[in-house]
Amino acid sequence: MSQRTMYCGEVSEKVLDQQITLKGWVQKRRDLGNLIFIDLRDREGYVQVVFNPEHSEEAWKVADKCRSEYVIEITGKVVLRDASVVNKQMKTGQFEIMAEAITILNEAKTTPFTIEEASNVNDDTRMKYRYIDLRRQEMFQNLKLRHAVTRSIRHYLDDNGFMDIETPYLGKSTPEGARDYLVPSRVHKGHFYALPQSPQIHKQLLMGAGIDRYYQIVRCFRDEDLRGDRQPEFTQVDLETSFLTAEEIQTYTENMLAKVMKETKGLDIPTPFPRMSYQEAMERFGSDKPDTRYGMELIDVSDVVKDAGFKVFTQAIENGGQVKVIVAEGAASQYSRKDIDHLGTYAAQFGAKGLAWVKVEEDGVKGPIAKFLGEISEALLEKTGAKSGDLILFCADKASVVADSLGGLRTRLAKELDLIDTTKFNFLWVVDWPLFEYDEEADRYVAAHHPFTMPKADQIDLLETAPDQVHAQAYDVVLNGYEIGGGSLRIYERDVQEKMFKALGFTQESAEAQFGFLMEALDYGFPPHGGLALGLDRFVMILAGKDNIREVIAFPKNGRAMDPLTAAPGTVSSQQLEDLDLNIVE
Amino acid sequence: MSQRTMYCGEVSEKVLDQQITLKGWVQKRRDLGNLIFIDLRDREGYVQVVFNPEHSEEAWKVADKCRSEYVIEITGKVVLRDASVVNKQMKTGQFEIMAEAITILNEAKTTPFTIEEASNVNDDTRMKYRYIDLRRQEMFQNLKLRHAVTRSIRHYLDDNGFMDIETPYLGKSTPEGARDYLVPSRVHKGHFYALPQSPQIHKQLLMGAGIDRYYQIVRCFRDEDLRGDRQPEFTQVDLETSFLTAEEIQTYTENMLAKVMKETKGLDIPTPFPRMSYQEAMERFGSDKPDTRYGMELIDVSDVVKDAGFKVFTQAIENGGQVKVIVAEGAASQYSRKDIDHLGTYAAQFGAKGLAWVKVEEDGVKGPIAKFLGEISEALLEKTGAKSGDLILFCADKASVVADSLGGLRTRLAKELDLIDTTKFNFLWVVDWPLFEYDEEADRYVAAHHPFTMPKADQIDLLETAPDQVHAQAYDVVLNGYEIGGGSLRIYERDVQEKMFKALGFTQESAEAQFGFLMEALDYGFPPHGGLALGLDRFVMILAGKDNIREVIAFPKNGRAMDPLTAAPGTVSSQQLEDLDLNIVE
Repeated sequence: MSQRTMYCGEVSEKVLDQQITLKGWVQKRRDLGNLIFIDLRDREGYVQVVFNPEHSEEAWKVADKCRSEYVIEITGKVVLRDASVVNKQMKTGQFEIMAEAITILNEAKTTPFTIEEASNVNDDTRMKYRYIDLRRQEMFQNLKLRHAVTRSIRHYLDDNGFMDIETPYLGKSTPEGARDYLVPSRVHKGHFYALPQSPQIHKQLLMGAGIDRYYQIVRCFRDEDLRGDRQPEFTQVDLETSFLTAEEIQTYTENMLAKVMKETKGLDIPTPFPRMSYQEAMERFGSDKPDTRYGMELIDVSDVVKDAGFKVFTQAIENGGQVKVIVAEGAASQYSRKDIDHLGTYAAQFGAKGLAWVKVEEDGVKGPIAKFLGEISEALLEKTGAKSGDLILFCADKASVVADSLGGLRTRLAKELDLIDTTKFNFLWVVDWPLFEYDEEADRYVAAHHPFTMPKADQIDLLETAPDQVHAQAYDVVLNGYEIGGGSLRIYERDVQEKMFKALGFTQESAEAQFGFLMEALDYGFPPHGGLALGLDRFVMILAGKDNIREVIAFPKNGRAMDPLTAAPGTVSSQQLEDLDLNIVE
Repeated sequence: MSQRTMYCGEVSEKVLDQQITLKGWVQKRRDLGNLIFIDLRDREGYVQVVFNPEHSEEAWKVADKCRSEYVIEITGKVVLRDASVVNKQMKTGQFEIMAEAITILNEAKTTPFTIEEASNVNDDTRMKYRYIDLRRQEMFQNLKLRHAVTRSIRHYLDDNGFMDIETPYLGKSTPEGARDYLVPSRVHKGHFYALPQSPQIHKQLLMGAGIDRYYQIVRCFRDEDLRGDRQPEFTQVDLETSFLTAEEIQTYTENMLAKVMKETKGLDIPTPFPRMSYQEAMERFGSDKPDTRYGMELIDVSDVVKDAGFKVFTQAIENGGQVKVIVAEGAASQYSRKDIDHLGTYAAQFGAKGLAWVKVEEDGVKGPIAKFLGEISEALLEKTGAKSGDLILFCADKASVVADSLGGLRTRLAKELDLIDTTKFNFLWVVDWPLFEYDEEADRYVAAHHPFTMPKADQIDLLETAPDQVHAQAYDVVLNGYEIGGGSLRIYERDVQEKMFKALGFTQESAEAQFGFLMEALDYGFPPHGGLALGLDRFVMILAGKDNIREVIAFPKNGRAMDPLTAAPGTVSSQQLEDLDLNIVE
């Protein structure tokens, strides 16, 4: 083997008339008269190589044997293509290599799909042959972007005194949060490690250790039922600091993200990011992670419609609920009655019991409930700003159902109506979160973030009396309608942590059994601290313009938590189970 | 809270006469007359704070309540200490802070051990209170060094076209190698993921995907019985390249390590590193990872002693073995007969059936076997270079036992005789490894490195006929007697991989079942490739001058694979087992 001069995609004027050596894959072979043309590909792109029997018959003969995806090494002179055949679609399209020598390094069978086709193949096939799928320039660019993002993040954090410290993957199972992946211990029979859902407790302990600023780009694991952008293992940019305020932590995060955006997308993102309370986000956008790239905000029309005589509205209001609308501008003509029925079905998923609507026409509002609005139409149009050609969708229910339903419709309509400027990257902080959520199924309060989140300082007493009124010193960072990260100040005093566990339904014994080591740590000089975790997969997915995190993970699992390439998970030998003292229930 | 001006350890002339705010831990409090002195500590060091009731009575009163490890915030003016009380042992010893204000951020109970004592506490106690242990400057420096090493490695690899790509932690269990940690699947009952022992196969697949240069600093898992420098999880600097020769990969590795040594230790390490064949290493040093910081090499004296009439020697030689010595310079007077008996017991662990020895004195050799050496003493001294005052230790057996025994003695004696220059960092490549080792217990050949290692190109035919004669295109990098990394060129052709599996005792079916996906991948255009993995924990341990990797891991496991801090592994709920269809064997 000779040494490679450069990557195929890097052939440029600098090497014009020079002899170079390239190594790569046969993307395409064409025969034209007695010439053979090979598009030679590597990760950085491709270049045309010409084999002329008059130039080197030996090379020409070998080239004649080459098929798609053969791995070859060629040596030849870089020349300008004839002006008439310059390929402007191709970075190296001005040039071609006049081959003098070629070696076949490895042959290839016909691949199950070609590199060009791969994006149209079904997901499991793409994953089974991931090593072929990843040969596509698009997938390579996704991985390259991911590396650029992590590199940029690391440089920022390194330069700001954060220390990259590894925390254990073999940890302890805790009852709060999602389901753990367990790892049976061979040494301690009947005992299990758990893979971390996040390094939350360990990073807090590092603050107790005086590390002051920690970060880690770390894998996390959740054994949950999978959705589009969920994976059994995912990657988190995890950071923690001591002695900083929530605002200071947010500032570090903003500056870090702005640097990433500048270095990977060339964009100047203004800082500070806008801040919005959880309540405002729910009221205006019907979402705790609003996409602010477009309007179509929720408008409360309860006052306007309360006396309209439409029972659904009146009842909702009387029951302490509300009536809100979204206005789909210019959508009246695009949505048939049947289309709107489909929107109603969609809204029902979020709890809406029905979807009232009107279309605004030159001579007033039209539609099934128009008759109830007769006299108040004008007030409605004034309140909502709706004009002729618009579609108004109503939801009347308790506030949470209205928010979820109209929030869901807003997102769907924005896509259908093409309202989204995909060149925009709108970052946003959502702050002032409730500390607890009520879990109907478990009939108890659960932590909205996690049990170590600090309540607002003046609300600690409410932990015991009115947990639903307690707000957290927590903050989520939102990008284009996705939550890409979240953080909080943490509890650093034992008595507050004890109250928190109590509010979550722990007995003193169960809190001690699960988290005694943490509470003991708080006794020995724990600093005020707080931090944040970013979902790396999701962040990179958004930057790559994709809608599934699988596109930015080299070897993802499928929707059944399986890897079609290696067939993991698989069966194991009876000896392996015996070593662990485990039986599989038949 | 006010904003911190700087770290305690950073107080310097730059802030002389300025008012600053510091936050940290009370390292020590002393009362002197009516003054209170607090050494305030954070991760970067400590500084003296003075509370004078005449200056601020309020602050003085709060300071009076402070105890060791309280977390406090102070504001005050930086002044020069009186020349008579400058502390030259302390970085900030010229200065002190005249406190104007103090806030107690958190109190602390009396810690189980003080920060100064921690290194003398037993390991389990240190680990149970790791957050206290890590407050020690020494431990902080270890973690800081570790971060500096990874940062330096990342910068080098980033700058050389290597892409940081994450591979799965939830993988497939494979029968070769050490014991896997298993992770039961909930979705696929009775099936298991395995935590990776290394990302070996995935990084090879990335080469098949055309990534060309990959790296990852990645956790690996082995469920083995633990030794001093083993942990259930450990960290590897993993890299892989396409189209490079073994020498080119070694060059990248050398340059990377030289950069790390320069940036973290300020040392210029000459490159290229010395290369030594496996055979030479075993013959000269009795080790496949020789420590070349000192001599005491093994010397073959078979020729000299073969006719000495000492049966042990003669028989060993007649049976195809050898007689070798090491010469412990000047050690004759330091080792009593009893001490040497202990050395013999030690050598027995490596298989030596006995340890013959002589001491060299002015008037000849003395000791139990001196009588056999009478006439050949001079030849022996000439061959070995031994002189008066030296101790000569003999081992007579088959070559492998001689190497292991004298190699072990050499290492032990070097420590006992203080021969090791601990300022030296001797890097070395050990090359030309055998491809296989014979596993007596399993009665078959096993891969000396792993089953994907490429045999020497001209020895592939021997795979089927004489596996013990096949050498690998493999290379280990050794530092001061530790193997810190190893790599190889990999098999990239299906037929060679099939022959390899056959030599390892796989049937076609079992090879297909376990590694079919890899062999299929080789069919679709796989490039020649190879790489290396460095053991990060061990490397950092050596740089930190420690002898246990626990000292450079934030939260290690103990010798029973347990974490005394969180008490992992622990029991889990019956619901968790039920979810996984698992029973614990009673």
